[in-house]
Amino acid sequence: MHRYRTHSCAALKKENVGETVRLSGWAHRIRDHGGLLFIDLRDHYGLTQVVVDPDSPAFRIAETVRGEWVIRVDGEVKARSAETVNAKLPTGEIEVFAREIEVLSPAKELPLPVFGEPEYPEDIRLKYRFLDLRRETLHKNIMRRTQIIAKIRSLMQETGFTEFQTPILTASSPEGARDFLVPSRLHNGMFYALPQAPQQYKQLLMMSGFDRYFQIAPCFRDEDPRADRFYGEFYQLDVEMSFVEQEDIFQTMEPVIRDVFKAFAGDKKVSETFRRIPYAESMKKYGSDKPDLRNPIEMQAVTGHFAGSGFKVFANMIANDDKVEVWAIPAKTGGSRAFCDRMNSWAQGEGQPGLGYIFWREEGGAVSGAGPLAKNIGEERTEAVRTQLGLEAGDACFFVAGRPEKFVQFAGAARTRVGEELNLLDRDAYELAWIIDFPFYEYDEDEKKIDFAHNPFSMPQGGIEALENEEPLSIKAFQYDIVCNGYEIASGGIRNQLPETMVKAFELAGYSRADVEERFGGLYRAFQYGAPPHGGMAAGIDRIVMLLCGAKNLREIALFPMNQQAFDLLMGAPAEASPAQLRELGLRVAPVAEKKG
Amino acid sequence: MHRYRTHSCAALKKENVGETVRLSGWAHRIRDHGGLLFIDLRDHYGLTQVVVDPDSPAFRIAETVRGEWVIRVDGEVKARSAETVNAKLPTGEIEVFAREIEVLSPAKELPLPVFGEPEYPEDIRLKYRFLDLRRETLHKNIMRRTQIIAKIRSLMQETGFTEFQTPILTASSPEGARDFLVPSRLHNGMFYALPQAPQQYKQLLMMSGFDRYFQIAPCFRDEDPRADRFYGEFYQLDVEMSFVEQEDIFQTMEPVIRDVFKAFAGDKKVSETFRRIPYAESMKKYGSDKPDLRNPIEMQAVTGHFAGSGFKVFANMIANDDKVEVWAIPAKTGGSRAFCDRMNSWAQGEGQPGLGYIFWREEGGAVSGAGPLAKNIGEERTEAVRTQLGLEAGDACFFVAGRPEKFVQFAGAARTRVGEELNLLDRDAYELAWIIDFPFYEYDEDEKKIDFAHNPFSMPQGGIEALENEEPLSIKAFQYDIVCNGYEIASGGIRNQLPETMVKAFELAGYSRADVEERFGGLYRAFQYGAPPHGGMAAGIDRIVMLLCGAKNLREIALFPMNQQAFDLLMGAPAEASPAQLRELGLRVAPVAEKKG
Repeated sequence: MHRYRTHSCAALKKENVGETVRLSGWAHRIRDHGGLLFIDLRDHYGLTQVVVDPDSPAFRIAETVRGEWVIRVDGEVKARSAETVNAKLPTGEIEVFAREIEVLSPAKELPLPVFGEPEYPEDIRLKYRFLDLRRETLHKNIMRRTQIIAKIRSLMQETGFTEFQTPILTASSPEGARDFLVPSRLHNGMFYALPQAPQQYKQLLMMSGFDRYFQIAPCFRDEDPRADRFYGEFYQLDVEMSFVEQEDIFQTMEPVIRDVFKAFAGDKKVSETFRRIPYAESMKKYGSDKPDLRNPIEMQAVTGHFAGSGFKVFANMIANDDKVEVWAIPAKTGGSRAFCDRMNSWAQGEGQPGLGYIFWREEGGAVSGAGPLAKNIGEERTEAVRTQLGLEAGDACFFVAGRPEKFVQFAGAARTRVGEELNLLDRDAYELAWIIDFPFYEYDEDEKKIDFAHNPFSMPQGGIEALENEEPLSIKAFQYDIVCNGYEIASGGIRNQLPETMVKAFELAGYSRADVEERFGGLYRAFQYGAPPHGGMAAGIDRIVMLLCGAKNLREIALFPMNQQAFDLLMGAPAEASPAQLRELGLRVAPVAEKKG
Repeated sequence: MHRYRTHSCAALKKENVGETVRLSGWAHRIRDHGGLLFIDLRDHYGLTQVVVDPDSPAFRIAETVRGEWVIRVDGEVKARSAETVNAKLPTGEIEVFAREIEVLSPAKELPLPVFGEPEYPEDIRLKYRFLDLRRETLHKNIMRRTQIIAKIRSLMQETGFTEFQTPILTASSPEGARDFLVPSRLHNGMFYALPQAPQQYKQLLMMSGFDRYFQIAPCFRDEDPRADRFYGEFYQLDVEMSFVEQEDIFQTMEPVIRDVFKAFAGDKKVSETFRRIPYAESMKKYGSDKPDLRNPIEMQAVTGHFAGSGFKVFANMIANDDKVEVWAIPAKTGGSRAFCDRMNSWAQGEGQPGLGYIFWREEGGAVSGAGPLAKNIGEERTEAVRTQLGLEAGDACFFVAGRPEKFVQFAGAARTRVGEELNLLDRDAYELAWIIDFPFYEYDEDEKKIDFAHNPFSMPQGGIEALENEEPLSIKAFQYDIVCNGYEIASGGIRNQLPETMVKAFELAGYSRADVEERFGGLYRAFQYGAPPHGGMAAGIDRIVMLLCGAKNLREIALFPMNQQAFDLLMGAPAEASPAQLRELGLRVAPVAEKKG
């Protein structure tokens, strides 16, 4: 017989009745029923009910066993009586009568209960993560995470991609976030950097003649911790292909992402094909470049109905600035003063002066608009708004006015709020879409200059001709995202592999050829020796796992995350270095006064 | 038609003759045969011969194309004439007559030729790694590497293991090598460390109730660069299992490792079952704990034949020190004075006084020993040696004497040398074996104290009773390696998960309970809350890939390695940090004078 087990704790069924078996695992729950001890024995695979009879030679030891002790149990499999069968448990038809129990490892008093998963302070959970990870939900989430990643791998392989590992100890990568630096012992005063993403390496792989790259890639960014962002490291599905256009990436990756979702969506619907929404349209309809498409609300511009109207606030804004627009947020079923006032209060809480609205009701067989705005603009314009938006009695509509770039974010938030408050969202769906045609440049208000809106390595639509002849802010990039339920889950682009186009693109953002050579030397050099057209994307593994686990916090889907202060409480990191280590690295820790300088 | 290609450069066959196709790739080789231009077009998948006729509209552009330019070719597939069919090439039955050529990306003059793969200085190869990686051998090695890793993954999954990613930004891990440190911006003066191996995390995963872990894990060690060791990072197949004994690890992992080798061994033989060789036996027979078992030579102790013999050098050593032994290195087919003298000279080159030998020849129908030693010890003892070793006329034997721990390394080297010189090795084999029963402790001559011989986390054979009652240096560990053809390719152990046994084991090596708590706090804490018996191993991916690629240098099987000075010449790392970065990290670079201190 095996030293520890003949079966896992999920294996025994009615067919095993009468067998003598050996199990090992953790004492999940211990109950004393009139002298009879019941121990739910738990391992990675499941639970088995162990019964210890006072007559059993195992009883004396069983009495000492406490929660989370690791024990070995030898015993006989017996069928449960009909009324005690537990249909929810794979082993629910049997129980094991213990003959012998060996304590393999006792446990001290638990700082964190495993059974029942009561809420517990996060720092305790992280310090005793090995107990936290035994809890059913987290254990299940982590296993789901590993299955999702395995599924991604197998889908990518089936799609003709090869996984490559790119260096982790490397040079600074220009992703725009802050690098982690690694001091060099052999070259004091110099530093390696951890990659923010394998962006340059994956492009170099295409220059190296490989064709379809992917990697479940660790990425590192030294950004301040946030609830929805891991501190330090995260994983992305990193993808790159040669000899492709944007459409090829869509055709190749859409089935992969869809099938990953389908494999883990359970009963939820998954978009069979992904809508393609240009960035500008997404901003106009949803007030966001990562719209939650489970929310059916689509905003519309209704500027004309307010121009010259009796609602002077909007009318004057429109008259004074031809860039002002009025956007309508239609709210099906929201047609009550109470709801409209609640939205108005919410808007004020968001720092807005208020949120204008009209709601429609049936009066004497006719639909009529109500609320202050309706009064101000009059019946005809109110009706025109209603008709444009396709609203009916019982519905409402909210209005925001100004220059769209100033209010769009708020408008998007209001759309979300309306949809959630009115329960318009289809919560049983994963709504996936491509957002396309992102602007190549944006105006940086702080620096008062044009800068790259997203990835500087993307190909501008229209190529070098567009860079030379068009208004930079009007140029679009071959750059795209995948969004799901209000989250960006992937981002990519067709790359700019033509060195002169690259230099021109950087020049418009204020960088010289020398800057390009210095900052992206390896890649710029590679582009000069036969560079295939290429493109790709990167998908956020952690975000996808969160969506597919229905988890609200990244720490519910990660093994050993740091806390919100960037401390690893389990392992005790970061920690001070020894004087000898610092000496070897040629470094000194600055005195505190200097640190603040 | 697709913008870049209808087929890859490996796809076209006789069936495609007559089709109009589009290919894209690199101009691998260009030949001018009497006006007709031949361009071998290369992509990731293969080569296709493109022919450009002077009458073709593509000819004018084709004339400008140089090696490694990326071009698109439209043309017609034609069958090659019988005498020009190239059976070695999958596309060797056809050629494509170009109608149109588009230059997608020209190349400057190449600093490194791709075609023909002439030898080139390593620093140029690393700086232009994107060209180097296009070369056939390296390209093939890298693809083989990816296939080997994919095979390992799928075998591990089939064997019931789950892949987990453990943190990379973590605390110092006690693997005995030097950590890379990562300064914390949020906690100035404190440092994270990159893991030397996920040792503690994989054990914590077992404490967390997961059962069978594996990871293709990046590991980081700041050790001085060597030809047979990557600087900085390397990959290992990291494995851990719960509720197992040593035999379970063998039964589980032997088929995985064997099947990986079999999948890529080609015509070479792979050990069907792995021999299990205790460490002590391995040292005695092979003079090494990583024996090359393709070499049939097994050494034997022949001390008795020299004790009291006429060969006074050995006889006196034996008389004066009862720990002295004489080992024989039998050399089948080495029975000539010339060979024996050559080995003797080699030994002198290794810093030895010489290498005593006897060789046997047939004289008048009888076998007789020759050489100075044979004369000194006389005919009877010479014959006894021959009989013990099973040698015959035409064979030789070499002798080393002293305390085995002093000469064993040299004896092992001599065994290797003899085997290679006499071509005794079976070069068409991967000889895999487990080396078992490693000593738990060793005597550290520098520190004049007992220290762990290998992994301090291993379980001592005999447990705490052995630690309390036995001579520490006699205690063996549940610790094992896998060796292949003279290389250690994996190493592992059953872990010591009992906190009191762990403290006792460290105490014998001079560490207090407080040291254990401080250095391995997370793990030590976890052991106190229900720790399952567990064990595992780690296999060196890079070493396995090297063996299976037949490569001599790690840089021939890695994508973007650093050079021997720990510089990444392609990306330019390490590099200086900006003053702002250093300020954020609260660090100052020490002046040069101090660095040397």
